[in-house]
Amino acid sequence: MDTLTRLEDTIAQRRRAAPETSYVASLSARGLPVIARKFGEEAVEAVVAALAEDREELIGEAADVLFHLLVMLAEKDVSLADVMAELDRREGVSGLEEKANRTS
Amino acid sequence: MDTLTRLEDTIAQRRRAAPETSYVASLSARGLPVIARKFGEEAVEAVVAALAEDREELIGEAADVLFHLLVMLAEKDVSLADVMAELDRREGVSGLEEKANRTS
Amino acid sequence: MDTLTRLEDTIAQRRRAAPETSYVASLSARGLPVIARKFGEEAVEAVVAALAEDREELIGEAADVLFHLLVMLAEKDVSLADVMAELDRREGVSGLEEKANRTS
Amino acid sequence: MDTLTRLEDTIAQRRRAAPETSYVASLSARGLPVIARKFGEEAVEAVVAALAEDREELIGEAADVLFHLLVMLAEKDVSLADVMAELDRREGVSGLEEKANRTS
Repeated sequence: MDTLTRLEDTIAQRRRAAPETSYVASLSARGLPVIARKFGEEAVEAVVAALAEDREELIGEAADVLFHLLVMLAEKDVSLADVMAELDRREGVSGLEEKANRTS
Repeated sequence: MDTLTRLEDTIAQRRRAAPETSYVASLSARGLPVIARKFGEEAVEAVVAALAEDREELIGEAADVLFHLLVMLAEKDVSLADVMAELDRREGVSGLEEKANRTS
Repeated sequence: MDTLTRLEDTIAQRRRAAPETSYVASLSARGLPVIARKFGEEAVEAVVAALAEDREELIGEAADVLFHLLVMLAEKDVSLADVMAELDRREGVSGLEEKANRTS
Repeated sequence: MDTLTRLEDTIAQRRRAAPETSYVASLSARGLPVIARKFGEEAVEAVVAALAEDREELIGEAADVLFHLLVMLAEKDVSLADVMAELDRREGVSGLEEKANRTS
């Protein structure tokens, strides 16, 4: 199983844990606005890391972005598979457009 | 191959295309500040979608976030594998902590 | 009258205009999520300008941030005076703390 | 003197203080990326407050946005007057456009 799918499973389990034993459970207990805020803050940190810090910082911030994105999606009952299907759909459309451009 | 790895490959190919034929190539030609700005804007849109819009909007915004995150990572020569390794490392540390908590 | 107070007045007037004749009215017609998204995007642009662009770009982005902040506040029925009173209150508290530190 | 101008003066003074005695001095000592990150995070918090919290929260977050915007501008040697002049310039242009629309 790939890393993000495994992480999604872990998050699903921990959301049901006691808030004082798990960061994910504590975020879930505090509700969607706090989760969305954390995701947004991590995204800002990734922007700053990309522009002003080194690769190692960016790797850490990108991991934070993905983790909090998954927590936010879980809170809205959106699965990773839903998002991947959307990316696959776009890639298919985009591939067809490229093919059309090449043959036209 | 999973969706994100395939998308990473597609982005790597398109970065070398002519800017007028590819969105990825045009972003890359405009440089890291523009890419980081686009990523940050998509993250804001995901925050707003999570708080004020429906599941379908959030799926689309999450896809935009992942796509632009991969473009930003590519521009800084960070691979998806680097970020997944960091997530795996944290999961390992976190799993060990949980185990320690259970047995203590 | 200072610039921001005058801008707040202008925004209050234009919110009541026909959406097709005024940017402020069109934002207001589209609702708070769109306004909050625009404010957030302008803030990201200011972050990028501060880190990667020159003073002129930052001045423009800071103006965009202030403008959209005022539109967002108006939509939530918060006045500029409310925010200034909060800043004055903090400054007062902070000044008292500084004085206490100096005399202790 | 209005609140923001006085706050700008206070920030200018505190930037020269010892980092351990002043929040502004400590931000300035940590450098522009940390300041830009703080500003961006406060902007995310204002977005979330506007969409999911009450007026009081939004007032506090808007004050945080303005404070950190002024710190960020100071770090890039941009004055509040520079930004206000840009807003006045746009207002002038916008007023002329409105007048042109009315008379055409």
